[in-house]
Amino acid sequence: MALIVQKYGGTSVADAEKIRNVARRVTRVKDEGKQVVVVVSAMGDTTDNLIKLAYQVNEQPGDRELDVLLSTGELVSSTLLALALESLGYKAVSLTGAQAGIHTDSSYSRARILRINPKRVVNELEKGNIVIVAGFQGVNQEMDITTLGRGGSDTTAVALAASLNAEMCQIYTDVDGVYTADPRLVPSARKLKEIGYEEMLELASSGASVMHNRAVELGAVYNVPILVLSSFSDSPGTIIRKEVSMEVRNKVRGIAYDTNVSKVTIVGVPDHPGIAAAIFEPLARANINIDNIVQNASIDNITDLTFTVARGDLIKAMSIVEPVVKSVGGTQCVADSTSAKVSIVGTGIQNAPGYAARMFRTLYEQGINIQLITTSEMRITCIISEDRVKDAIQALHQAFELEKVQP
Amino acid sequence: MALIVQKYGGTSVADAEKIRNVARRVTRVKDEGKQVVVVVSAMGDTTDNLIKLAYQVNEQPGDRELDVLLSTGELVSSTLLALALESLGYKAVSLTGAQAGIHTDSSYSRARILRINPKRVVNELEKGNIVIVAGFQGVNQEMDITTLGRGGSDTTAVALAASLNAEMCQIYTDVDGVYTADPRLVPSARKLKEIGYEEMLELASSGASVMHNRAVELGAVYNVPILVLSSFSDSPGTIIRKEVSMEVRNKVRGIAYDTNVSKVTIVGVPDHPGIAAAIFEPLARANINIDNIVQNASIDNITDLTFTVARGDLIKAMSIVEPVVKSVGGTQCVADSTSAKVSIVGTGIQNAPGYAARMFRTLYEQGINIQLITTSEMRITCIISEDRVKDAIQALHQAFELEKVQP
Repeated sequence: MALIVQKYGGTSVADAEKIRNVARRVTRVKDEGKQVVVVVSAMGDTTDNLIKLAYQVNEQPGDRELDVLLSTGELVSSTLLALALESLGYKAVSLTGAQAGIHTDSSYSRARILRINPKRVVNELEKGNIVIVAGFQGVNQEMDITTLGRGGSDTTAVALAASLNAEMCQIYTDVDGVYTADPRLVPSARKLKEIGYEEMLELASSGASVMHNRAVELGAVYNVPILVLSSFSDSPGTIIRKEVSMEVRNKVRGIAYDTNVSKVTIVGVPDHPGIAAAIFEPLARANINIDNIVQNASIDNITDLTFTVARGDLIKAMSIVEPVVKSVGGTQCVADSTSAKVSIVGTGIQNAPGYAARMFRTLYEQGINIQLITTSEMRITCIISEDRVKDAIQALHQAFELEKVQP
Repeated sequence: MALIVQKYGGTSVADAEKIRNVARRVTRVKDEGKQVVVVVSAMGDTTDNLIKLAYQVNEQPGDRELDVLLSTGELVSSTLLALALESLGYKAVSLTGAQAGIHTDSSYSRARILRINPKRVVNELEKGNIVIVAGFQGVNQEMDITTLGRGGSDTTAVALAASLNAEMCQIYTDVDGVYTADPRLVPSARKLKEIGYEEMLELASSGASVMHNRAVELGAVYNVPILVLSSFSDSPGTIIRKEVSMEVRNKVRGIAYDTNVSKVTIVGVPDHPGIAAAIFEPLARANINIDNIVQNASIDNITDLTFTVARGDLIKAMSIVEPVVKSVGGTQCVADSTSAKVSIVGTGIQNAPGYAARMFRTLYEQGINIQLITTSEMRITCIISEDRVKDAIQALHQAFELEKVQP
């Protein structure tokens, strides 16, 4: 029998009325004669409130206890959804992460799923139950509760869909799909009917926050089609799946931006082997994620080096880099938090001529200065001044004709 | 190493400040060089709020889901207490009912403990941890979460104390011990230093609500000394244990009352075999608990029959009894909710002369009419008018000299 896995986020189950609404949506799939597994997040701001409580009794709460504490949020929402389904006359059963067979490593607060033993889920489905699984959690070898960290419930849903060989994993959220650009900034932005896994990953890591990358990666590995859609409307959503019509369509699939960017420029560094390692190794040890690194061509063996970090990491990054720069004989170290990233994303755009050039020309015609350029297999990113982001993405959206429906 | 099991009720862990207070209390035992297992209830009115949520999504919530939902309350308080202990520099670990090896039958919402496998608890104690166990819950054979119903966390604590061979089970609550009578009604009421299991059971079922009988019964079976004391003061509490000095002390140990009493009197019933069964069997089937039954001596083969039920059951009881009375040819059926029970409790008072007589005389001297009398091995109960309860227990307290310290 065909099986659908659905996942509902915290805003979709924020109160009793919304939970009843989700229940009605779940029954539609059941009424089509399909089996349904539903993964839920904690209600609204439950998780934040639990974290607040933990900090009231301990300024540095330990991960093991925090994980048990936070896992209760999903238990509450999963039982309430099961109860709501029962009140509509459907058979439903809620399962904890442990009961659903979600086995993880012991990295509390950011556990990785090692394997899923879906025996209990399958049994309950065979009994005719709609199965509700508490998202975001699993158990380690000692049967201690772990949580999966950011994007956890999405990951639970896609992993379950993979292990159950589901037809599709539907991610219900508060946006109704993936757009060619942020519709709040680009009124002509168009919702994509479909997008490839890798394109979605690039869009997300370039700032489009629809789903956490972890779940998309898992979908790509196990080839699980992921449908992103809204629990508050009936609009059709966007399906994330293996590229099918790569050659015929517009290669630019979307435009993303990210304003959580700080730029660090190191001026006058002697250009000899080992200099990059000397700078970036201590940053890695401090767990600071470096986003883009650009090194200018060297003149007289002196070069400039620029990289970007998240704004929250800037002070820490500067405190690490400044002594290093001094010790290697660099001139100075300049921090700048007025920049933002703008990216065009699409499979193969790096190898196709003209995309980069068109992007640069478009920004030039808007009078927007490009501070840095980085590219990947399917992304071209420019760092520009933050106050020009809106102009940039509107112009790029038009230049790449994203408002037009693609085949 | 000596081991103490402590249990803290919902009011003792109602907020972060109170949880930190409980943590300090727990560490005192640890500092004495003893091992500690702590059982906690859900914070304050958590359980009520979860029940409210359940009824918002389903007017008749199913027991299985409700049990998972309610069990989260104890998970939250147990992790918070573990975190609070860690912040005081102590090693602590919280365990769910399942992890603590508490195996129950599958009677959701009122599960009975079948056995305890304390392996994990013992392991954690041996690692030097203070072990916090979520009260009120266990797992059935399918590893589904069950809850133990009323008095559940007390039962968890005493059962763990029995299976771990603890020196003592300490029940921290919002009263500081067991009194000779309700101190709100009898200012001279005295806190008992100790009381026998059976006396405690009679006191509790006669209206003194310190602990649920279930936990006391378990303590009696496994001979676990139970210390009842307040988490808000340092007063010494009352220890419930096997009778030790039965012969020398005053046999009346306490006076209890219960105003949750309705009286049903069936007048003019033909006195022939099977009549009692005809009346009480349908009440039992309807799950109505009958408290006292008195049948008057029969005159001309016609008798009167009186019994008491909890006030909440009165309407249901009358609707069942009235047609039965009609069918057996009874005259009428009278309900009365203006009565209350007053009891004197003490081991062996039924077999010792004079206790009953002194009780009846005392009530007579107060001008209090006795509507019904029932007795058990260690209890004499009179049903009187509810508005005379205070006079009755004050007079009885004085008549049996309960304000005097006993040997």
